[in-house]
Amino acid sequence: MGLQKSDALDVERIREDFPILQREFDGEQVVYLDNGATSQTPNRVIDAIADYYRNYNANVHRGIHQLSQEASIAYEEAHDTVAEFVGAEGREEMVFTKNTTEAENLVAYAWGLNELGPGDEIVLTEMEHHASLVTWQQIGKRTGADVKYIPVTDEGYLDMDAAADLITDDTEMVSVVHVSNTLGTVNPVSELADLAHDHDSYVFVDGAQAVPNRPVDVKDIDADFYAFSAHKMTGPTGIGGLYGKKAILEEMEPFQYGGGMIRKVEFEDSTWHDVPWKFEPGTPLIAQGVGFAEAVEYLVDIGMPEIQRHEETLAEYALDRMAEFDDIEIYGPMDPTDRSGLVSFNLDSVHAHDLASIMNDHAVAIRAGDHCTQPLHDKLGVAASARASFYFYNTTEEIDALMDAIDSARQLFA
Amino acid sequence: MGLQKSDALDVERIREDFPILQREFDGEQVVYLDNGATSQTPNRVIDAIADYYRNYNANVHRGIHQLSQEASIAYEEAHDTVAEFVGAEGREEMVFTKNTTEAENLVAYAWGLNELGPGDEIVLTEMEHHASLVTWQQIGKRTGADVKYIPVTDEGYLDMDAAADLITDDTEMVSVVHVSNTLGTVNPVSELADLAHDHDSYVFVDGAQAVPNRPVDVKDIDADFYAFSAHKMTGPTGIGGLYGKKAILEEMEPFQYGGGMIRKVEFEDSTWHDVPWKFEPGTPLIAQGVGFAEAVEYLVDIGMPEIQRHEETLAEYALDRMAEFDDIEIYGPMDPTDRSGLVSFNLDSVHAHDLASIMNDHAVAIRAGDHCTQPLHDKLGVAASARASFYFYNTTEEIDALMDAIDSARQLFA
Repeated sequence: MGLQKSDALDVERIREDFPILQREFDGEQVVYLDNGATSQTPNRVIDAIADYYRNYNANVHRGIHQLSQEASIAYEEAHDTVAEFVGAEGREEMVFTKNTTEAENLVAYAWGLNELGPGDEIVLTEMEHHASLVTWQQIGKRTGADVKYIPVTDEGYLDMDAAADLITDDTEMVSVVHVSNTLGTVNPVSELADLAHDHDSYVFVDGAQAVPNRPVDVKDIDADFYAFSAHKMTGPTGIGGLYGKKAILEEMEPFQYGGGMIRKVEFEDSTWHDVPWKFEPGTPLIAQGVGFAEAVEYLVDIGMPEIQRHEETLAEYALDRMAEFDDIEIYGPMDPTDRSGLVSFNLDSVHAHDLASIMNDHAVAIRAGDHCTQPLHDKLGVAASARASFYFYNTTEEIDALMDAIDSARQLFA
Repeated sequence: MGLQKSDALDVERIREDFPILQREFDGEQVVYLDNGATSQTPNRVIDAIADYYRNYNANVHRGIHQLSQEASIAYEEAHDTVAEFVGAEGREEMVFTKNTTEAENLVAYAWGLNELGPGDEIVLTEMEHHASLVTWQQIGKRTGADVKYIPVTDEGYLDMDAAADLITDDTEMVSVVHVSNTLGTVNPVSELADLAHDHDSYVFVDGAQAVPNRPVDVKDIDADFYAFSAHKMTGPTGIGGLYGKKAILEEMEPFQYGGGMIRKVEFEDSTWHDVPWKFEPGTPLIAQGVGFAEAVEYLVDIGMPEIQRHEETLAEYALDRMAEFDDIEIYGPMDPTDRSGLVSFNLDSVHAHDLASIMNDHAVAIRAGDHCTQPLHDKLGVAASARASFYFYNTTEEIDALMDAIDSARQLFA
């Protein structure tokens, strides 16, 4: 608590970078508070993608002509840019995937399907996103490995005593969300990595809600794998990053097969290219890679520590304002320094979907549903929740608009 | 033979749609003949993608607010647009994948891994792209199924007598390329589908080099699966289409797991959403879907029959001009009506890579290498070939420029 208001960001100027923030719903300017689902895209990123298609669009890796050379350099350097952003060593530790979900599946298939068997255990948390929970659950079913869940306390934290008991020498993989997309909780991933490594287990961190919002260093965390998505951090849809320790990626079997990931193919068998290309078969996500790198450079220019402080300020303001009302149930930690800039909640006697619909009538865009955490919602005893999620271009005035819209719903259902 | 020159396309006007065609290499306007690797992108598609990010970027499927509704409608309707383009029934038969390669892997993993075993046979062709060849080879190794190859004749055709012998009641999957990306050969995929179905086998058609260049109707072919990539047909990188018969897709297990593809998730197990969403976990390829649909609409406006005729005209012109020279070896059928608008060749005593490099000095962009068909090149007795591949915006004058550049290489190495 006791956060100081951040003066570091010139939000008014930043908002000019985002054409969509000028959008109106029925004459009212949009208040976009659905950043946990996807962030908005600045002109710089949109222009970088268009510039690629207008000026140097070509297939990469194997081309001799100048367009292909330019596209190849841009695509390969994009890996370095994204790698550096999260503290990885370079392109050999950064695989571009379709999204965070594909990163989970890549490791679950390429590593899990080959390495897991009966008697092995996979440790998840009760607050995992379906991308992690369903993937490891199904790979567990297929391989005979057991899946166990670190419980979530009533305050919205991981039960770390239980974690210390659950992670044993039978554990082969600990897959844990860095920041919960429902509770906002920032989990102690470094501590979990230590627990995992004490038992010779790998640790996979789902950083989809962390990398956009705070400085992340995969080496400090000592994650074996770390995944995130460009579209939640001002980048394009259709691309994500999978960090993996180089030695592990090199040892792993490939996931998908095709051109660009092979060294030698004969009718009988094949051998594989170096990392990261071994994991990127087919024509890769070239324009998306260019856009992803531009987004990362944009965030670096804004400043990740400043983004984190701004989000904590917004979270604190939202929590304070919501706490004034007895009819609002807030999920997750009440200390804004323990959470990211998103708040899930329910208003008594108004279904979250109805609430979101009334919000929309006031041009306030939030999300309602289970946020791809059905088992966590079962545990919370609700089918759905409303979620307001903030980014560095949001303001306290927009949270006031959110609260006004909540009040309208309250009146309507009174 | 005996093709009439197509007057149907106003190529000069069409070329204005493509800003990159004005690019210069050292003062010379680019002659882009690498369309088999990737096609160029018209302003309409670039603008549609930018318009998405500027005006209605949002996550889809579950959102109540207006941006999410607009994005959801656009993304879902993009499936219908692409489905209709290849004669599929609608979105329930059209899965968006990352590229053609992912479509092969999706079916190989989701169907093959569950259904194949020792004694089963997979029938491929010797002219398969690595996306198909390596994928089925490796799934064969994993499941114990045998892989057999339909031979290619010296003239560059499939040996259909051999095909009739190879496809038996043990065959569970016939995976065949519609148009060879190396030989240009248009294969009798409908006949192969009949052979496969006579033996209760599925047939998967790799249409990456067919859908961009000629009218394709998956129902006429009676393909069970049919795959293609947007970036080879004026669309964005990072997205492809997988057609599957609805009944087969519904019966299949999912491939990747995550949000958006589930119906109900509990800690112990999960159930799946309807097709196609069952196969599209995580935040999907939203901007890419919008761009893909725009590209399809652009091609419809140009006219697919006209595109096919124009390419045949260019292929005939290129074959005729190359046939004048004894030192040029052409691979694939010599009848332009049996092939698509791409010509792979070698110039005596000049390595394909050197040839492509000299071409680049003359601003002619072609591809050199094994074109992701190493085993076919082994059979042809060469490590690499040069490939000029045409699209509807290319002209006979550009083929003259290609021939002039070949002549420069000839002089240089004489």
